[in-house]
Amino acid sequence: MGKLLIVGTVAFDEIETPFGKTDKILGGAATFIGLAASQYNVESAIVSVVGEDLPQAYLDVLKAKNIDLTSLEIVKGGKTFYWKGKYHNDLNSRDTLVTELNTLADFNPVVPEGFKDADVVMLGNLHPSTQLSVINQMKERPKLIVLDTMNFWMDNALPELTEVIKHIDVLTINDEEARQLTKEYSLVKAAKVIQEMGPKYLVIKKGEHGALLFHEGKIFFAPALPLEEVFDPTGAGDTFAGGFSGYLAATENLSFNNMKNAVIHGSNLASFSVEKFGTERMQELKKDEVNKRLHQFKALTQFDIELQ
Amino acid sequence: MGKLLIVGTVAFDEIETPFGKTDKILGGAATFIGLAASQYNVESAIVSVVGEDLPQAYLDVLKAKNIDLTSLEIVKGGKTFYWKGKYHNDLNSRDTLVTELNTLADFNPVVPEGFKDADVVMLGNLHPSTQLSVINQMKERPKLIVLDTMNFWMDNALPELTEVIKHIDVLTINDEEARQLTKEYSLVKAAKVIQEMGPKYLVIKKGEHGALLFHEGKIFFAPALPLEEVFDPTGAGDTFAGGFSGYLAATENLSFNNMKNAVIHGSNLASFSVEKFGTERMQELKKDEVNKRLHQFKALTQFDIELQ
Repeated sequence: MGKLLIVGTVAFDEIETPFGKTDKILGGAATFIGLAASQYNVESAIVSVVGEDLPQAYLDVLKAKNIDLTSLEIVKGGKTFYWKGKYHNDLNSRDTLVTELNTLADFNPVVPEGFKDADVVMLGNLHPSTQLSVINQMKERPKLIVLDTMNFWMDNALPELTEVIKHIDVLTINDEEARQLTKEYSLVKAAKVIQEMGPKYLVIKKGEHGALLFHEGKIFFAPALPLEEVFDPTGAGDTFAGGFSGYLAATENLSFNNMKNAVIHGSNLASFSVEKFGTERMQELKKDEVNKRLHQFKALTQFDIELQ
Repeated sequence: MGKLLIVGTVAFDEIETPFGKTDKILGGAATFIGLAASQYNVESAIVSVVGEDLPQAYLDVLKAKNIDLTSLEIVKGGKTFYWKGKYHNDLNSRDTLVTELNTLADFNPVVPEGFKDADVVMLGNLHPSTQLSVINQMKERPKLIVLDTMNFWMDNALPELTEVIKHIDVLTINDEEARQLTKEYSLVKAAKVIQEMGPKYLVIKKGEHGALLFHEGKIFFAPALPLEEVFDPTGAGDTFAGGFSGYLAATENLSFNNMKNAVIHGSNLASFSVEKFGTERMQELKKDEVNKRLHQFKALTQFDIELQ
């Protein structure tokens, strides 16, 4: 069992999709990452910040998964980060209606003493300087540092982003972000450029079109499981990241072959996450459901051509 | 060795991409299908029509691959079907600048006597009534009938298209066409509706995002090989269809497992087709290049998770 340190938002999400809408519900990158990673045999902690308005029941959801919340700061009189969005009919795009940073604006992450020797650090989408400050607090270099980010930081904090990714092992971004970061349209070319920027591994997330893992000259591809219905894509990328990093922390094997498995595990969990609003599906997800769907991934992708 | 009957256009293409432009070069669905299928141990024939303006050298390209051209009609004084198109910067979309049907307008396909007992019939994109007339000329029901079509016929000849697909085994269309044909956004739901319309198998082509094979409750997915450069996507779908049908005709095995292999073989050949303008790459393609890239497909997709 490895130690996994998770850094990211714990938040209120308010979501509208073609299938319905929610009130303020539990969301945030660290929440989805933590729930996904809890499927594996890991000791995990979340570093985050919330306000006093976040219901205790939401924190209990994370505690029930044995996630250490020592360094989840609750700001007295503060308000929790709040995001409201509306998905378009095809669910591939969305409009952000409200973003209130609230307590996140002054977030100063403090790594708990017991996790300064974590094996794997999973840095959810945050300001790159915040992500870097976490790396700098580690007692020794973690075996693996995974960083998720988005186009917003490429637009608004590119020097800081460029700095932090020098210090990480795996970058996870989507296809458009990979193109924006490198000015290369071909993802194969973009991957080469990014690997020269620091991370030895790159995961390019393509949503319903799957995910690509790049390392040196090697490429691995995992499709998204074709689903009858996608209900709410919120958190799918974070769930992928949680499954990926949680599986690697639990198996303590950082070979490329095991990274492939981690990509499949991440994709597998993401396929559940989108089936209900918010974290609902991940909260109730059972081990045997996870295993059953891994068989579906195998049937979906494995073939047996005799090669010469 | 099985017999493969190919029906479709042999044409002039004039292509502009961000990387350059061509004069009128050899193109057409049947051309790409025939070149791809010639990679396998099949006896094949093309049923098509051209005008006297098509250079003999173009027909010699097909003859050199041992494709029977007995029923490739050359209309005296006629002009060959001509398509001119320009690809956008991302190569995912294109504008048709010119379409001249010419001799194709009165195309009346005649199946050569020696191929009325073909094992596999590959119906390239044409008016659905023309496709149906080929099926009706077969002496006995072929072991497999594969049909490719496009949104144009959904817009302009839906009753005829609905009729012909009752008589086929495999339909190949792209994702947007599957949605248009069924009014279902989810491809899983669309596949169910299409299988109720006739074809027991459905291939949904997603271009750079790969291809899905549906049969009863089963789904198989083959990615497109990530390439450093895509030069000209023209004919990629037809090359896929030629590899798919050619492989099945050669192996004479219509099990679902072998259909999976056929999807990989089709995707593999399509990855070559896009590397040069028109048919150039397919004309020169060597067996050992094909085999080598199959190894890349295996590395790209195969993983080894122990399942419970």
